[in-house]
Amino acid sequence: MAAEPSPAHPDYRYDPVFLLHRGGKIGMHPSVPVVGDDDLAMAYTPGVARVCDAIADQPELATRYTWVANTVAVVTDGTAVLGLGDIGPAAAMPVMEGKALLFKSFAGVDAVPLCLGCTDVDGLVATVAALAPSFGGINLEDISAPRCFEVEDRLRAMLDIPVFHDDQHGTAIVALAALRNAARLAGRELGELRAVLAGAGASGVAVTKILLRAGIGDIALADSKGMIYRGRDGLNPVKAALAEVTNKAGYTGSTEDALRGADVFIGLSGSTVAEQAIAAMAPRSIVFALSNPEPEVHPDLARAHALVVATGRSDFPNQINNVLAFPGVFRGALDVRASTITEGMKLAAADALAALVGDGLAADYVIPGAFDERVAPAVADAVASRARVDGVARQ
Amino acid sequence: MAAEPSPAHPDYRYDPVFLLHRGGKIGMHPSVPVVGDDDLAMAYTPGVARVCDAIADQPELATRYTWVANTVAVVTDGTAVLGLGDIGPAAAMPVMEGKALLFKSFAGVDAVPLCLGCTDVDGLVATVAALAPSFGGINLEDISAPRCFEVEDRLRAMLDIPVFHDDQHGTAIVALAALRNAARLAGRELGELRAVLAGAGASGVAVTKILLRAGIGDIALADSKGMIYRGRDGLNPVKAALAEVTNKAGYTGSTEDALRGADVFIGLSGSTVAEQAIAAMAPRSIVFALSNPEPEVHPDLARAHALVVATGRSDFPNQINNVLAFPGVFRGALDVRASTITEGMKLAAADALAALVGDGLAADYVIPGAFDERVAPAVADAVASRARVDGVARQ
Repeated sequence: MAAEPSPAHPDYRYDPVFLLHRGGKIGMHPSVPVVGDDDLAMAYTPGVARVCDAIADQPELATRYTWVANTVAVVTDGTAVLGLGDIGPAAAMPVMEGKALLFKSFAGVDAVPLCLGCTDVDGLVATVAALAPSFGGINLEDISAPRCFEVEDRLRAMLDIPVFHDDQHGTAIVALAALRNAARLAGRELGELRAVLAGAGASGVAVTKILLRAGIGDIALADSKGMIYRGRDGLNPVKAALAEVTNKAGYTGSTEDALRGADVFIGLSGSTVAEQAIAAMAPRSIVFALSNPEPEVHPDLARAHALVVATGRSDFPNQINNVLAFPGVFRGALDVRASTITEGMKLAAADALAALVGDGLAADYVIPGAFDERVAPAVADAVASRARVDGVARQ
Repeated sequence: MAAEPSPAHPDYRYDPVFLLHRGGKIGMHPSVPVVGDDDLAMAYTPGVARVCDAIADQPELATRYTWVANTVAVVTDGTAVLGLGDIGPAAAMPVMEGKALLFKSFAGVDAVPLCLGCTDVDGLVATVAALAPSFGGINLEDISAPRCFEVEDRLRAMLDIPVFHDDQHGTAIVALAALRNAARLAGRELGELRAVLAGAGASGVAVTKILLRAGIGDIALADSKGMIYRGRDGLNPVKAALAEVTNKAGYTGSTEDALRGADVFIGLSGSTVAEQAIAAMAPRSIVFALSNPEPEVHPDLARAHALVVATGRSDFPNQINNVLAFPGVFRGALDVRASTITEGMKLAAADALAALVGDGLAADYVIPGAFDERVAPAVADAVASRARVDGVARQ
């Protein structure tokens, strides 16, 4: 099947990562036995017809008698996969399977990876809308900006189940949680902090929005062309809207300029920031260098100047990992059959996550670890409670 | 959540069929552990990126390192569910879950139930085409005729994975297998037999087509308006095409007229046939009364006049059950990464199924039982072999 091994096509067969992926990372599992005619007559025809009839009569019964209420579709078009970019749906599947694996392992959610062979916004929206009756929620994943914003907005408006673009909101929830704790360690309020965020893609935009809602003092964004400010030429509609509510200080130059005296740096850019720029930040600064696998600045260098340093990597302290958010967020939303995920539910998830750190708070511990078993239940509880408060819970 | 129990809304909570359906009949299952940072680094970031990269470079590797090669989407729009009709996608889910359960239990195939919220042909085709990169095959299910024909035809033309409308071809394969054995018991060749088939929906059309390809002497179809013949007013394109190649004897009246002296009756109609009409068939006749749950004629009555009687029910001999076909058909197709399911593969599946009866052939045993463990492997082998012969196998 595959080409003969060569320098261009290595032999993956003895590589532990590839061995682990052999045959995929997930499977379907029967939850009832089928070993005799009676089983068949109950789980399939003729018995199943009575269950169908009952649901046709009382649609609410689908929650109790199908798997739908516990399922999430993990949907991508393969256009912005990890740091790899537009690698297409087939090559995106290992990531989506991984996501499904984490959904089940961390929160008992049955997630189905769906890598779609269309990339236009109308096609994506129509496809996901058609799929919606089969799922309790939709996790959008690795869809490139700015299409991801329109896809999510339109689906949220159309569907009565949660639609959550994890690259945006998962990252935003975890970053906010970590920043709350970092600010607490620094003895500061969020409203006193001036932040600079490099990277105006899906996650950068979402982190900016959640920090604005959480009351950050000021936040200025940079994209590949420099700082984003009101009136800058060629801004897309998403960036133009953000320019209206960010960068109060009016930086128009480089990221390094804006960082001088700033309290917080958040990197979601895939680019680099010089150590000197970090050194020029305010005292007791907070640096989240979240690009993977290479942080914008090496955490050991940043740590020489900053009070708190976080990265996206598991081999340094304070890992900003989406797995701290999405399993619990969907667990909570599914548990109460939420019709949507509100801004309040995201903030509640961040607060619950931050609170778990408690008295253990330290420069190397502003966010729980990925395998902290308290995380998913705490996030789920907070999300479910807030869904009730916000009036979007249906049970 | 659901309404209080009442005569219109019974209390299903202590009903064994509903108890079995509680929470659904399937779930996702992790096939690799995620208990520590090393697992996460291999199954998810950063390790997974290497697998994605490799697949982007060599697409064939998706077969080895994702679950796609073993997956089938079970797709419906809920318009023709069992005998219940157009009950919509939510109420169709228990059947599709049941199908997924059988796929896994009988043939180890990972099948995902997808009940779509659109019913127009263009929308169904576009949605399934968008989903195709995530699956090794597409099992269409319970889509009403005549839309199902166009949906399947267009998808077969577009996609390079098997597309199989089980209501059509599953039924056709099992009916042909049973008819081969019934003819053998009667000492007749298929080419000598004159058949009458009541019901020109998805399964009736497909059974007619496979019997024509298998060389049946003559077959005449009836729909709700009577016999289908060349030139009858108001035939849809599918029926008009069949009118050209069926009903050589030129019956234009009722099913009962056509049955007089016929060798074979096949009912796929949901209607009834009088015992006298069965009695008026040729000696040593063959009666397949396949409507569920009520056969067109009670098998005990039919048995008084016919040599062989088959039904769709598990509580009478000779059950024509699709579960004898679809698990093995897809198992075989997936095993060789078939790009399509050819007519030859369907005939090979029927022949393999018929052959399992062997010397045990008797009036009450013209088809193996649903739990005969030889069935799925034998069908899979035949389908895979024929895929190679037909040049549609890719490994």
